[in-house]
Amino acid sequence: MINQHMHDLGAEPNKIRELFAYGLERKAQIGPENVYDYSIGNPSVPAPPQVLQQFSDQLAGDPVVVHEYTPSPGDAKVRQAIAGHIKDAFGIPATMGNIYVTSGASSAIDITFAAISNPGDEIIAISPYFPEYKTWANNAGCELIEVPARADDFQPDVAAIEAAITPKTSAIIINSPNNPVGTVYTRQSLEALADMLRAKEEELGHQIFLVADEPYREIVYGAEVPYVPSLYQDTIVCYSFSKSLSLPGERIGYIYVSDLIPNAGDVFTAVCGAGRALGYICAPVLLQRVIANCLDVPADVAAYEENREILTAMMDELGYEYVQPDGAFYLWVRALEPDAVAFSERAKDFELLLVPSDSFGAKGWVRLSYCISKDTILASHDAFAALKAAYE
Amino acid sequence: MINQHMHDLGAEPNKIRELFAYGLERKAQIGPENVYDYSIGNPSVPAPPQVLQQFSDQLAGDPVVVHEYTPSPGDAKVRQAIAGHIKDAFGIPATMGNIYVTSGASSAIDITFAAISNPGDEIIAISPYFPEYKTWANNAGCELIEVPARADDFQPDVAAIEAAITPKTSAIIINSPNNPVGTVYTRQSLEALADMLRAKEEELGHQIFLVADEPYREIVYGAEVPYVPSLYQDTIVCYSFSKSLSLPGERIGYIYVSDLIPNAGDVFTAVCGAGRALGYICAPVLLQRVIANCLDVPADVAAYEENREILTAMMDELGYEYVQPDGAFYLWVRALEPDAVAFSERAKDFELLLVPSDSFGAKGWVRLSYCISKDTILASHDAFAALKAAYE
Repeated sequence: MINQHMHDLGAEPNKIRELFAYGLERKAQIGPENVYDYSIGNPSVPAPPQVLQQFSDQLAGDPVVVHEYTPSPGDAKVRQAIAGHIKDAFGIPATMGNIYVTSGASSAIDITFAAISNPGDEIIAISPYFPEYKTWANNAGCELIEVPARADDFQPDVAAIEAAITPKTSAIIINSPNNPVGTVYTRQSLEALADMLRAKEEELGHQIFLVADEPYREIVYGAEVPYVPSLYQDTIVCYSFSKSLSLPGERIGYIYVSDLIPNAGDVFTAVCGAGRALGYICAPVLLQRVIANCLDVPADVAAYEENREILTAMMDELGYEYVQPDGAFYLWVRALEPDAVAFSERAKDFELLLVPSDSFGAKGWVRLSYCISKDTILASHDAFAALKAAYE
Repeated sequence: MINQHMHDLGAEPNKIRELFAYGLERKAQIGPENVYDYSIGNPSVPAPPQVLQQFSDQLAGDPVVVHEYTPSPGDAKVRQAIAGHIKDAFGIPATMGNIYVTSGASSAIDITFAAISNPGDEIIAISPYFPEYKTWANNAGCELIEVPARADDFQPDVAAIEAAITPKTSAIIINSPNNPVGTVYTRQSLEALADMLRAKEEELGHQIFLVADEPYREIVYGAEVPYVPSLYQDTIVCYSFSKSLSLPGERIGYIYVSDLIPNAGDVFTAVCGAGRALGYICAPVLLQRVIANCLDVPADVAAYEENREILTAMMDELGYEYVQPDGAFYLWVRALEPDAVAFSERAKDFELLLVPSDSFGAKGWVRLSYCISKDTILASHDAFAALKAAYE
């Protein structure tokens, strides 16, 4: 018999994907220039030229070696390059033995949850949060415990997280710069979180891992993004090159088990086992080698920064409430009625595609992805004005 | 606390990988020309020129579109192309709605097991078999039940499989052309298997899925490889381009849920859910599109065929017993003592790297991968002669 849980997961509607699909249909009906699609987080800038050059260089190499099978955690040179990059950029004594190359952050988090928790454990996420965290926690047999971010600034609510920790807590996952809010967690917030976790580890007598999901690390507008392993010992970083190098469909990233974890070797061995159990052995070799040679290539954030300025100015002018984004390419805007799903439906009448916050475990907001063309943002002005007017 | 099961999986020695690593070390010590490394199944022929051309063509396209995110089961055009290929090549009314593009056959099988079984179920494999079948069955909460192949010709032992089926049997996985034996299952064998399974489905009142793991489909030396969905309704094909297009490190393949399965839609929905749970959404887009345009490119088997001739002639001359391989690039040779692990160790004294059959759930044989250079095979003659002499 088929697995009902998997069937339900496969059948579960995904609001982001649904809106995106609706948008494609609608664009075909009334012309793409008449639909203001803020639904999806696909980078709108191309990969940097160094990336394209790397593809050419790799493909021009030995025709057998270029596509060869690598060891399960990745090509030794690639893992060495990533460890060296972490050491140089963040001053952590990273070694290649703690790097596991993955198919993007999705598999990185899924593998990590399976490696560091046991069925019946609890994993804490700060809401609003990326919805698949729940799927992956469940896949590890764990319950995802939602703790709302602070209402005023969307920083972690350390007291609330502390209150949510139980003897079954195996990990807390954080995502800064944040999808869907755009917040960057401050050094002060992270230090307070780390202090509390250290005290809790001592009190409970076991490790509590901090899983840092960092695909947006390089997409920031001046804010500092502290490196979590330098603030809290028991940290595992899940990284993806999807956003920084504009390679969303290529699914390439890595897990870094901090060398500062006292039992880092055992944690890494469990990561290898979980990678094996989930079928992730040898991330695509061409992509491994391309990114290994582009670790220092800066992300092209200029377009996003300009979009952010235009969009926030527009929201200011029209009187929408939003959270000032310091990173990522999302704007978190207060819905004009308590039910964000109804508000998102209403917005469709004005050809505005906005993702309701319910998709991220929160009520009363919508997410706007502004990794789209500037022209679309400018052209959406009157639609936002009309939507506002409809509620007045 | 870290997950002990995952830790144990990560720490478990892998004889194939160990031999391969030993070989690299030994080659550095005494020169690569003095080590006869038959350990690993990495194709020794480059990808066909059409594949390289496709990489160029794809990378020359729109710089944002080329790396864009696709829907979770894959790019619509890619799925359409694969379905069309199945229809044209095998006469099955395949539709894109039943194609899920994956990161190779590993993830395809892992996803499939999770989709079509429930914790406590049993999955049958025919020994000798690819060792990760057990890991993936266990990941789905299932027990892997080993049923030996027929001793004389390594075809499926239908009576023995029938005897092993219980009310908990959810699936049987077969692999033809076979790793590690090189056997190709005959139409007669598969028809007998299908007849038995149909009767068992009726008797037990539930589906028994046949999972056809087919990475070696195109690596054959004249034998017919019947398409399993045309013989048995409840079939799911797990395919990889690793061997046919010599892309072992790129991890690209697909799941095909046969359109002939009465509840194919529900099975596919469960596949989508399992893909999501295991973190497999949107296989690397560049690789998706490259293979979609190379579906009709023939595998280059000439080198393997020549190697097969040379190696089997050498075994005949030296008096080794082996199974005549009709496909894949492995030769299954009888160990010269009952303990294949000890025989493999002894072979190392002659710089011969042979994988003991214990790694594949069988006793008394070794596997030779002959996807290596012809010169290495020719040069290994005296080592095989000396190994034989050591047992006389």
